[in-house]
Amino acid sequence: MAAQGGRAVRHAERDRVARDLETLAGLHDDGLGGWTRLVFSQVYADERQHVLRLMREAGLSAAIDPAGNVIGRLEGTNPSLRPILTGSHTDTVRNGGRFDGVVGVVGAIETVRLLRASGIVLEHDLIVADFLGEEANPWGVSCIGSRSISGRLTAEHLELRPADGGPSLGEAMAGFGLDPAAALGQAWRRDALHAYIELHIEQGPMLERSGSAIGVVTAIAGIDRLLARFEGRPDHAGTAAMGDRRDALAAAAEAVLTIEREGCGAPVHGVSTTGMIDAQPGSFNVVPGSARIWAELRSVDERWLGEARRRLAREIAAGANARGVEVDVEWLNDQPPVQASRSLQDHIARSAGRLDLGWEPVPSGAGHDAAHMDVLGPMGMVFVPSAGGRSHVPEEHTDLGDILHGIDVLAETIVSLDRASALVR
Amino acid sequence: MAAQGGRAVRHAERDRVARDLETLAGLHDDGLGGWTRLVFSQVYADERQHVLRLMREAGLSAAIDPAGNVIGRLEGTNPSLRPILTGSHTDTVRNGGRFDGVVGVVGAIETVRLLRASGIVLEHDLIVADFLGEEANPWGVSCIGSRSISGRLTAEHLELRPADGGPSLGEAMAGFGLDPAAALGQAWRRDALHAYIELHIEQGPMLERSGSAIGVVTAIAGIDRLLARFEGRPDHAGTAAMGDRRDALAAAAEAVLTIEREGCGAPVHGVSTTGMIDAQPGSFNVVPGSARIWAELRSVDERWLGEARRRLAREIAAGANARGVEVDVEWLNDQPPVQASRSLQDHIARSAGRLDLGWEPVPSGAGHDAAHMDVLGPMGMVFVPSAGGRSHVPEEHTDLGDILHGIDVLAETIVSLDRASALVR
Repeated sequence: MAAQGGRAVRHAERDRVARDLETLAGLHDDGLGGWTRLVFSQVYADERQHVLRLMREAGLSAAIDPAGNVIGRLEGTNPSLRPILTGSHTDTVRNGGRFDGVVGVVGAIETVRLLRASGIVLEHDLIVADFLGEEANPWGVSCIGSRSISGRLTAEHLELRPADGGPSLGEAMAGFGLDPAAALGQAWRRDALHAYIELHIEQGPMLERSGSAIGVVTAIAGIDRLLARFEGRPDHAGTAAMGDRRDALAAAAEAVLTIEREGCGAPVHGVSTTGMIDAQPGSFNVVPGSARIWAELRSVDERWLGEARRRLAREIAAGANARGVEVDVEWLNDQPPVQASRSLQDHIARSAGRLDLGWEPVPSGAGHDAAHMDVLGPMGMVFVPSAGGRSHVPEEHTDLGDILHGIDVLAETIVSLDRASALVR
Repeated sequence: MAAQGGRAVRHAERDRVARDLETLAGLHDDGLGGWTRLVFSQVYADERQHVLRLMREAGLSAAIDPAGNVIGRLEGTNPSLRPILTGSHTDTVRNGGRFDGVVGVVGAIETVRLLRASGIVLEHDLIVADFLGEEANPWGVSCIGSRSISGRLTAEHLELRPADGGPSLGEAMAGFGLDPAAALGQAWRRDALHAYIELHIEQGPMLERSGSAIGVVTAIAGIDRLLARFEGRPDHAGTAAMGDRRDALAAAAEAVLTIEREGCGAPVHGVSTTGMIDAQPGSFNVVPGSARIWAELRSVDERWLGEARRRLAREIAAGANARGVEVDVEWLNDQPPVQASRSLQDHIARSAGRLDLGWEPVPSGAGHDAAHMDVLGPMGMVFVPSAGGRSHVPEEHTDLGDILHGIDVLAETIVSLDRASALVR
């Protein structure tokens, strides 16, 4: 175990962590299924006050910043050193679970308690963050809080509106008591951090399958999202001969299977998903004249992403055109993969080893606040197993024992990073 | 040409028919695209008053019955004979065209004018009908008016509500000034008619391709409609490995293509169409856990319909199950094919021959009021060509010359039927 002046970091306290998880789980929106706590909801506001209290009780000087991040600071002994940042988020998707994000915030606060209880004083300041609004939301801007401090929240983002035409993101932030203009202006300077480290559930099946307690994240997958619009011809479903049709839905269905095949053929981590579809005019007796699909590709391998993207556009167009259907493939955004710092991967793996915990390198298919923190300093993530690989559903589960192991590795790694200099990205 | 006491039926008058078509086309709902005239709309009410006037001006004693059918009668010389009925409908689908249905009503009224102008008096009464609400509507009850007089409108139909929970069909009828209870009670007796004959546009491409002026309908296709519900498992689209997924949308997409293949492999007239699809939860980053498709099979061949139905249910289930997706295929309704009367087919074909018009036997892929009139007497239909086979779209078109030929065949056939006895079904 890491020791400072002969002092080892204590192990995470089961009852305290269980109580923190339970209290946060209790703060959910009863009307929306699962353990839902949407950004800008009343229950989210209540929960942020609770997290603020938890941080202060743990001995942090804490406040909510203009972007709604709950930020706590534990002062180190050497003010000339750049801080270490750890944290995650506590908002959820609709009908979501109790662990995604929450484990990293509870783990960060527990780490502060453990350091203090162990009599360990870090040289670097340790900052704990509960970032605002990490999950996908109706404005299409995930990771609102971590974008703000990394300088990736823009004036354009604040003007975006949901599909239903409700308030803009800036208006929603102001309505939540935040200061959107200040949120744009508070970006931390590049390389402001000694290191960023985030504890999170895997949300996938790899750790459970291999039996490893700890995942050392190698990279966060890039995401390419597309909207394909198919234009065929509406025809009477009883009278138009099969060979005469230009059926937009049949073309879209073929594209759904083409997209699925692309992911199935990926080397290393690559997945592809069609999440949404519609067809018009939407009647039993009319051959659909137009259809749309929304899909995404994800991989930690930027080269595969680029090639898959080109192949998909070509194959979708060829399939549709063979049916006399026109297709327009629009690429909506392009989030490149983010590699974890080699140094942080080493520190995490060695910390797990010192704690006698099995570990393995894993890619992250999901996006994380960590992907934005990358501009502020070397970034690393610690994963703990997800039962059945399930996430973003009420059944999402990680055993308390696995969470405690993750917190121990987080604390051990932070102490280890505190002593390190010259971490590389 | 048919002659009665030496008198031939005059040819349909171009200017008069053009004016009738144009006036009816003018009575459409500007807000809904194309030439829309939906059942129970204000413009439909106005239009029915216009049809009533047209019938009366043509010399018919006409009225609107409790189900909203505009019914006109031209008395024959022999009250002991059963009447001949001809007609069609003048409602349209949303964003529909100017000819579907309208040609049969205008043609029936023009026939009455031609008979009178030619000095021809029929032995049988000739009844002209503009049936209420033939097209698909939000209550799922097409052919409201022809169902009423054939005894196929039920109390259950009147209680149906649209998906948006608006007024029931009975309430909508009452709101339109009709008498739903009387509409249930006014069924004509079985075999009440000497013959039913309907002029209609083909709505398909066969006549235009072959260059025939007249289609002699052999049968009206039966329709089997299905709703397939796919239940897989929602998963995080970034973290769930491709091989672990139970993607309900991918299973539904495969079913769309299976359904399409079934129609492509049909002998004689058979088509299959998936008209509607949805997938839940409908987000970029969630593998769809559930999906639904609504589809139909149509054919004039009852045996093929039954076999195709069994094959489809089996193949859709096999495809979904191979993906770990459960599927429930619900057959929503089952409308068997209706064969046209052999006698009427002969009379129509011989009438076209006497008028030197090319004809050919054609199946009807679309449903018609004629399919319900079948219980009241021998049924026949005369088709005229549809440009490009298009229908239920604003571009729907039939040349005026073709419409005039159709009316001539209708009038000629009615005179021919008037003299015939013992028509067989």
